[in-house]
Amino acid sequence: MSSKPPRVRPHLARLPGYAPVVPLAERARLAGLDPEDCLKLDANENPYGIHPSVRDTLTTALADPHFGSIYPDPNQTELRAALARYTGLDSDMIVAGAGADELLDLTLRALLSPGDSIITCPPSFGMYPFLADVNELKLVEVPRRDGFALDAEALLAAIDRAAADSVVVLTSPNNPSGDLVPRDLLCEILARGATVMLDEAYIEFAGFESSAQDLLSEYPRLIIMRTFSKWAGIAGLRLGYALAHPDLVASLIKIKQPYNINQAAEVAGIAAVDCVDEIAEQIDAIRNTRDQLYDALLGIEGLSPLPSSANYILVEVDPGIGTGRQIHDRLAAVGVFTRTYSDPLLTNYLRISMPQANQLDILLERLSSVL
Amino acid sequence: MSSKPPRVRPHLARLPGYAPVVPLAERARLAGLDPEDCLKLDANENPYGIHPSVRDTLTTALADPHFGSIYPDPNQTELRAALARYTGLDSDMIVAGAGADELLDLTLRALLSPGDSIITCPPSFGMYPFLADVNELKLVEVPRRDGFALDAEALLAAIDRAAADSVVVLTSPNNPSGDLVPRDLLCEILARGATVMLDEAYIEFAGFESSAQDLLSEYPRLIIMRTFSKWAGIAGLRLGYALAHPDLVASLIKIKQPYNINQAAEVAGIAAVDCVDEIAEQIDAIRNTRDQLYDALLGIEGLSPLPSSANYILVEVDPGIGTGRQIHDRLAAVGVFTRTYSDPLLTNYLRISMPQANQLDILLERLSSVL
Repeated sequence: MSSKPPRVRPHLARLPGYAPVVPLAERARLAGLDPEDCLKLDANENPYGIHPSVRDTLTTALADPHFGSIYPDPNQTELRAALARYTGLDSDMIVAGAGADELLDLTLRALLSPGDSIITCPPSFGMYPFLADVNELKLVEVPRRDGFALDAEALLAAIDRAAADSVVVLTSPNNPSGDLVPRDLLCEILARGATVMLDEAYIEFAGFESSAQDLLSEYPRLIIMRTFSKWAGIAGLRLGYALAHPDLVASLIKIKQPYNINQAAEVAGIAAVDCVDEIAEQIDAIRNTRDQLYDALLGIEGLSPLPSSANYILVEVDPGIGTGRQIHDRLAAVGVFTRTYSDPLLTNYLRISMPQANQLDILLERLSSVL
Repeated sequence: MSSKPPRVRPHLARLPGYAPVVPLAERARLAGLDPEDCLKLDANENPYGIHPSVRDTLTTALADPHFGSIYPDPNQTELRAALARYTGLDSDMIVAGAGADELLDLTLRALLSPGDSIITCPPSFGMYPFLADVNELKLVEVPRRDGFALDAEALLAAIDRAAADSVVVLTSPNNPSGDLVPRDLLCEILARGATVMLDEAYIEFAGFESSAQDLLSEYPRLIIMRTFSKWAGIAGLRLGYALAHPDLVASLIKIKQPYNINQAAEVAGIAAVDCVDEIAEQIDAIRNTRDQLYDALLGIEGLSPLPSSANYILVEVDPGIGTGRQIHDRLAAVGVFTRTYSDPLLTNYLRISMPQANQLDILLERLSSVL
């Protein structure tokens, strides 16, 4: 008999893993501070938290003796109907996932075989290279240009080379740089017949008028990913959704985990759609804070904020005052938790998620105290 | 450009899909009955629902303004500590999943490449062939003998043939037949060096003395799957866990979705462990109901129950009174929802999940009314 544990597949044994966000309690403990005195600005969550109306609906649901004990609906009938109301699309173009993360993975599993490629434009969301690793896909990287604009020419050339066995992953607004994918570039890519997975996790902070959703009817190879983690403030409950051609949606529903949406997410998701006008006030507040923080950062020597269409701002740090990591560490010591990256492209950068409006002054005070 | 949606991989396009349970509301509607008047005995859920103590803890958690809005802990530190208390194992041998389903999939993805095999013993849980299909694995089926006992000789022969590139999937108690995997057979399989994924989803209804958990230290190729869906009554919140060698656990944590456990499941799971003695009363009640239902079924002409170590009973239906599907349909018409199968091995069978103790008489009355 073998006295060794089973070996994981070689490509997984080599995998560096995803660098997830460290929980608030742990970060606060490391800083020697009370979590209540800290600003958690590292994961682009909604700083206002779950909306009171959504919370009330969850509380009511919890009073039902059957709450949580019955398997969820594998066809997500009520949830998809709510998402149809929210997006204005038919529910046969919608499938929900346990966060957009699950749907990114599921879609890659559905479309690509080991050895196929995904084309990405770093710096961007860390899940894409992670999922390429997990699914044994080639990662074709087309780095962004100075200032992090997409390199359209190089991207189109990579798409032409990669042919059929690839998926192009674009992010609009991009995480962490905050910029939107130019519409004409997206159309050009789609017109070439490429399959595009467009991650619109932060689109509510740009406004739906910046979404590519209207292109779905014209381009059946466009797949849009969305999430309730950001605008709806339920990152902890895990709810995202994909918008795609009905044939692809039918396949994704067939191959997904049957009970992938937990009941708390289902209830909260439907409630969020039902009070979307109230949550819009939070979104407006976050956008205002973003614009105020951007202006304030412009006035701080050594820091250069990038314009952002999302709920975070990427800040370039002048090497004269330190690396992004150094500023991050100094901020962490005073209870402001931001995000940095191991990516060499982002050595001189720091990403700050938006705080509540009334926390902006605290953020700016603590920031100037460490500069 | 292509005007067609992207094509899923050929092995997925062929996939029949998993046949999930139809939601109660839909089944009640089809029967023209109020859901409150129906007995949902089709998915082996805990008929007593979420425990009041667990519900209270969830209600308290929900009062926190940050509830649900922050990403969960990717390392599952508190949850794994609770699972360590529950199992008596070190937390480095434990990883939690969004239901055992996620961990079954994740483990197969970690260990097997397309073209490798899983060895199963049908009739058993429908997720195994589904996951074989999704992951492009060969399904080596070693059918159970008459009466659904494992065919030890054929199983060992299949294991010897399949060599290294396979995982043996066993289920104890088996779903739907209710029998335990004989310990000497399991040891014999492990001693041959096979990797065994042992699904103990229902082990609490047999008692931990029937678990193979104590074999983990001796056999590093044993992986045990458990769930909170059955004993803890939180199927709708999605929480399961795997017990395995620390090296394999470390790999699974590295390749899983970082935020795979939603916060409601995390809170409820920890709370369930903290009130395990109270939930044990529900488990005892379910076992008593099972034994009473078994005795009652023995006395009904045309029905032959199989002894069960789980929270359901598989019932053989004499062809003289109908097929399993026919009895199922007649029961559904009077608001008793049971489970049947398309598997030809189970044409003459019907699976009944345990109701609450005080619903047993109703079940027996409705059963006799349709025979």
